[in-house]
Amino acid sequence: MDFSQNTILVSANEMSKCFSAILLKNGFVNNKAEQLAAAFTQNSLDGIYTHGVNRFSRFIDNVKKDIVKKDAEPSLKSKSNGIEQWDGNLGPGILNAIAATNQSMKLADEYGIGCVALSNTNHWMRGGAYGWQAAMDGYIFIGFTNTIANMPAHGAINAKLGNNPLVIAMPYINTAIVLDMAMSQYSFGSMELSAMKKEELKVYGGYDKEGNLTKNPATIIETRRPLPVGYWKGAGLTLLLDLLAAVLSGGLSTHEISKRSIEYGMSQVYISINIKKLSNYSSITSLVESVINDYKQSVPENEWISVSYPGERVVKNREQNAENGIPVIKKVWDEILTLNK
Amino acid sequence: MDFSQNTILVSANEMSKCFSAILLKNGFVNNKAEQLAAAFTQNSLDGIYTHGVNRFSRFIDNVKKDIVKKDAEPSLKSKSNGIEQWDGNLGPGILNAIAATNQSMKLADEYGIGCVALSNTNHWMRGGAYGWQAAMDGYIFIGFTNTIANMPAHGAINAKLGNNPLVIAMPYINTAIVLDMAMSQYSFGSMELSAMKKEELKVYGGYDKEGNLTKNPATIIETRRPLPVGYWKGAGLTLLLDLLAAVLSGGLSTHEISKRSIEYGMSQVYISINIKKLSNYSSITSLVESVINDYKQSVPENEWISVSYPGERVVKNREQNAENGIPVIKKVWDEILTLNK
Repeated sequence: MDFSQNTILVSANEMSKCFSAILLKNGFVNNKAEQLAAAFTQNSLDGIYTHGVNRFSRFIDNVKKDIVKKDAEPSLKSKSNGIEQWDGNLGPGILNAIAATNQSMKLADEYGIGCVALSNTNHWMRGGAYGWQAAMDGYIFIGFTNTIANMPAHGAINAKLGNNPLVIAMPYINTAIVLDMAMSQYSFGSMELSAMKKEELKVYGGYDKEGNLTKNPATIIETRRPLPVGYWKGAGLTLLLDLLAAVLSGGLSTHEISKRSIEYGMSQVYISINIKKLSNYSSITSLVESVINDYKQSVPENEWISVSYPGERVVKNREQNAENGIPVIKKVWDEILTLNK
Repeated sequence: MDFSQNTILVSANEMSKCFSAILLKNGFVNNKAEQLAAAFTQNSLDGIYTHGVNRFSRFIDNVKKDIVKKDAEPSLKSKSNGIEQWDGNLGPGILNAIAATNQSMKLADEYGIGCVALSNTNHWMRGGAYGWQAAMDGYIFIGFTNTIANMPAHGAINAKLGNNPLVIAMPYINTAIVLDMAMSQYSFGSMELSAMKKEELKVYGGYDKEGNLTKNPATIIETRRPLPVGYWKGAGLTLLLDLLAAVLSGGLSTHEISKRSIEYGMSQVYISINIKKLSNYSSITSLVESVINDYKQSVPENEWISVSYPGERVVKNREQNAENGIPVIKKVWDEILTLNK
């Protein structure tokens, strides 16, 4: 985020307290308010503002509209050893996701690999958070969610696919390597930010009205034709992720979610693997280290580029924002403050 | 493949018999020769010529060089309930992959979800084949392999990443939906074909010497800078797939494989889920059907485009090639025939 005159700095502590107070005011019980406030703050601290502070007011709005059921808890629908199906009962997406991640780790402890498929949940905000959660506990993690339709198939003009974020995480010494990628080249959130700043996208992000590729974010927001990562490849991958999420959880697919005007009732998959149970456990750290060290021998195209692995910049943001405060668009923070009046 | 004057048509039966004879001549026992001949033929029948007939001579060459150990069988290294580590003992990649897929399905029968991590194997040729294998048996399948380094990180100029193919498959009535994607926008095989035909790539496939994106396949083959799908996203995904494959199997990572002049000793992951054990099993077919039906409501950009799901064109190729014969570049077939003399 840019430190323009419209941006203020808020400490993580202040942000979390403010979120918590608003959540309590909106009827959340203590420990849920704490967990949610911590998650929204952590996402912001990590630099994922679009799914942290920038989204908090909308979350509260969805609670008020009862789209998010503030007291709902996930319930077990069925179990077949290492795979379980849970119903999110439309509870807060973040809390359901934390619970599902925990449960997948428990299953991994028992079965080596564990899978929780969650139906009927709400937006998990930042998928990477659950990758961090599992990896910092020593698990390999694969997770994904479906979304409302927001992207056309390759060669098509109407949105039939979600951009279904995929998370893959790996423990790495005292940190983690965490990939968190939506299947569109850019999220609508980041395109809106670029459009606001009147900046071009670095690479093609979608199509204009004539069906030509464009780097103009405002154009793509208008046509609603973002580009799947790798064209036909990302389009195919996102279709399979949706199918897996819906089939495994017995929940809704993108096409069913899209019959609603607001996105809710998503299907998600959480797979954890307990690496402590692997025969090569003692050498995993050095293996990962040697891969990362070699990766870091990449020769950048020019001196301004630093080649980083997934999750590396998150840690830098975290440290920087912890020291300086979290940059928040003033308008966003003002809106949040009114929720606390 | 184009039906030019340099292409001949070979029936699946003739191709399989020829492959089998050559394999027997090179010391394979009967049933292995049959399995390998069937796999190379099926890949060709399905239209994946680059990992079927076009690659057969090279496979035989690797057998002769003892890079592929013709009698080797995979052996169990360790087991932790639903997850097992196997050593491929440098046996034929196709046979190891078929065995690993079978074993992951057995684990799924017992534990709901099963994972086989295979180290020390050889090229599996066409990853999609194992997706088809599992899905036609009624399993959801996720599989991936690492490769030798053949792609730079985003923003870098030297190859530090493999293009690590990822396969995801889902049963669908009497067929399957099978995604089989390498993490480069185009494979070197398809770029070589385009270069030979003096055709431009449809979308950017990599970089030229000056670091500009290009659609010229010959240029990309020269710079060895193919484009990861979705730029930083595919680069990140492929790094994680390599880490998972190496860590889970206790095998080599891309960076270790790349110390060798020839690609062998790869690490792979095979995850199967038994959908028959899911509580919603009876409604899965209609769920998948409704997703595909909706997807097919995509409005194509123009009348020449038909929006297809992953694996759909494979079935068309299969039917067409079964009827007309498999198109093979004459030079490729002549070379194979000399192996049978």
